[in-house]
Amino acid sequence: MNNTISIQLLKESIRNVPDFPKPGIQFKDITTALKDPETFQYIVDMISDHFAGKGITKVAAIESRGFIVGGAVAARLNAGFVPIRKPGKLPAAIYKKSYEMEYGFDALEIHSDALSKGDVILIHDDLLATGGTSFAAIDLINNFNISKIFLSFIIELTFLNGREKLSHHEVHSLVQF
Amino acid sequence: MNNTISIQLLKESIRNVPDFPKPGIQFKDITTALKDPETFQYIVDMISDHFAGKGITKVAAIESRGFIVGGAVAARLNAGFVPIRKPGKLPAAIYKKSYEMEYGFDALEIHSDALSKGDVILIHDDLLATGGTSFAAIDLINNFNISKIFLSFIIELTFLNGREKLSHHEVHSLVQF
Repeated sequence: MNNTISIQLLKESIRNVPDFPKPGIQFKDITTALKDPETFQYIVDMISDHFAGKGITKVAAIESRGFIVGGAVAARLNAGFVPIRKPGKLPAAIYKKSYEMEYGFDALEIHSDALSKGDVILIHDDLLATGGTSFAAIDLINNFNISKIFLSFIIELTFLNGREKLSHHEVHSLVQF
Repeated sequence: MNNTISIQLLKESIRNVPDFPKPGIQFKDITTALKDPETFQYIVDMISDHFAGKGITKVAAIESRGFIVGGAVAARLNAGFVPIRKPGKLPAAIYKKSYEMEYGFDALEIHSDALSKGDVILIHDDLLATGGTSFAAIDLINNFNISKIFLSFIIELTFLNGREKLSHHEVHSLVQF
């Protein structure tokens, strides 16, 4: 565990970009945190340490930013990695789930051979906002009769109350805005 | 290092999907390799071991599949992580490079504050085909006056001769088709 970084320093390393991708949105840009070796390591350490010992067999990460730390955490936990992707990206048989976003609808897909009944799943995404995306991801994973699902985020926008929507599962975030 | 997996087993774990995303293309699907904990660990081990000791300070991975193993390798090498993305995804000031693909044109972007002159860069993508995407990524990184760039791929389609286009840099791939 790295001792020179703290949650406060991690929070300060995240860049706020006003009006991206649409006017009125304060975009939380994690690239300024990820590019620093110590801060990146701190993020991976903190998430991996939190979920170590929970028996996680696969990390299911949400395209695209979720793949970065999701891949690193899967490797650290000796788990497999499963991508949850936007429509049309996965080449084999899939399950699909449409969901409502702040502006319109979107959908997520997972390969129908991605998980097995005995798996313990950690869903990872960079950001928890309204929880709509994560709720769709849980719905996809429920196709496999998985008994244990955990959720991990780097950032949680607490004023959007996304955590309430995910209340049947353990939710962990590193930084809250 | 895991001893139960071999390059041959890794190769066999990659699924061939005919006619995806277009008729005539034999798509190499790595999700069947990534979902298996031992195979995923083997991929991350083999790439990290190969590049350990080369002084890599940042892994620059190409959206989206490159993010998965790129993130894991960056964490293993104690390097920072930098995303190279499709147009319009990065929120701050960028460099942009257009390039020709098998069918039409595409472009890649990198944040203009992503790298520093002293960085040693490992570009990672899942697949080396014609080398057009990697060549564009090198071009983006050349904006920063980086003196040392390495390239890493899980799969290399040797019949497309992409390696020739990248001959000024050290290219490493795990599996060749």
